[in-house]
Amino acid sequence: MAPVAPRSGDAVFANVERVNAELFTLTYGAIVRQLITDLEEVEEVNKQLDQMGYNIGIRLIDEFLAKSNVSRCVDFKETAEVIAKVGFKMFLGVTASVTNWDADGTSCSLVLEDNPLVDFVELPDTCQGLYYCNILSGVIRGALEMVSMKTEITWVRDMLRGDDAFELRVKLLKQVPEEYPYKDDE
Amino acid sequence: MAPVAPRSGDAVFANVERVNAELFTLTYGAIVRQLITDLEEVEEVNKQLDQMGYNIGIRLIDEFLAKSNVSRCVDFKETAEVIAKVGFKMFLGVTASVTNWDADGTSCSLVLEDNPLVDFVELPDTCQGLYYCNILSGVIRGALEMVSMKTEITWVRDMLRGDDAFELRVKLLKQVPEEYPYKDDE
Repeated sequence: MAPVAPRSGDAVFANVERVNAELFTLTYGAIVRQLITDLEEVEEVNKQLDQMGYNIGIRLIDEFLAKSNVSRCVDFKETAEVIAKVGFKMFLGVTASVTNWDADGTSCSLVLEDNPLVDFVELPDTCQGLYYCNILSGVIRGALEMVSMKTEITWVRDMLRGDDAFELRVKLLKQVPEEYPYKDDE
Repeated sequence: MAPVAPRSGDAVFANVERVNAELFTLTYGAIVRQLITDLEEVEEVNKQLDQMGYNIGIRLIDEFLAKSNVSRCVDFKETAEVIAKVGFKMFLGVTASVTNWDADGTSCSLVLEDNPLVDFVELPDTCQGLYYCNILSGVIRGALEMVSMKTEITWVRDMLRGDDAFELRVKLLKQVPEEYPYKDDE
């Protein structure tokens, strides 16, 4: 049987169930507002958004693998391209570009110029330390952990802080060999 | 100039920006989980979800009116049909049916058999009093208030509680005459 070709981000996005982006944007805004009210410290809000994203990412990876036909990536460089071109497209309807690789190919930047999470958002002065889109870094971290890559993800640029794009720095810390969680005879 | 015809829910949905439904579902699940952790009482979570929905609804109505070409509805019956057939479709990608009108045409039920908010959701025993989708009733209440209709919305059936569909009872309490919020010479 011929192997199934991986599908482009556009093709995958056209075939998944979708909801209105503005509803999503406003719902996400409602979460952030709620967290700010409940937790008060923006540092805590950043942490919580990252954790929520992580919990989403470890589940979303299944949908990603099932719908995209992407098979094991040969290296971290290919992984980053797949996240940028297929993953972002499939879930948010936008693509990112991959830039600024370090010499040993374990750190790169994902740059987003269009980000549906921040439509109509302006941060008040009291929230200047907030990484509003921190859920995204959590999602990527969680999803990569499920395919055995431990990463550290930080924001380098943020349009809500006046930068010209969103830039996430993704650093591969460790690639864990995959193991079956149970023995064959169980 | 010929009047612009209202667009069908399908036509509107095909032309709005969209994101992946599973991402939305998981993000919504993360909110509910967060509220349960923070607020502890399910009654409080129900209230908070409704309030978040209300805040979303009062903004979402603008997108709805701008994209749907729906003009003023002649009565509450037409309003209910528009919510069910255009509103639900435009935002969630599903349609509802309108049933169980009372004699004076001020109460009806919106019945949803498919609801992307609850994919993969099961309520633990500790959350039996939770109206998981309470954000929806808040959205409708908020949106209607912006077009001068005060409503009361309650859940009659809930698939997460073992019912065969989701049924929202919508009762029109008061229709406020529209007023300009400012004088002509301001």
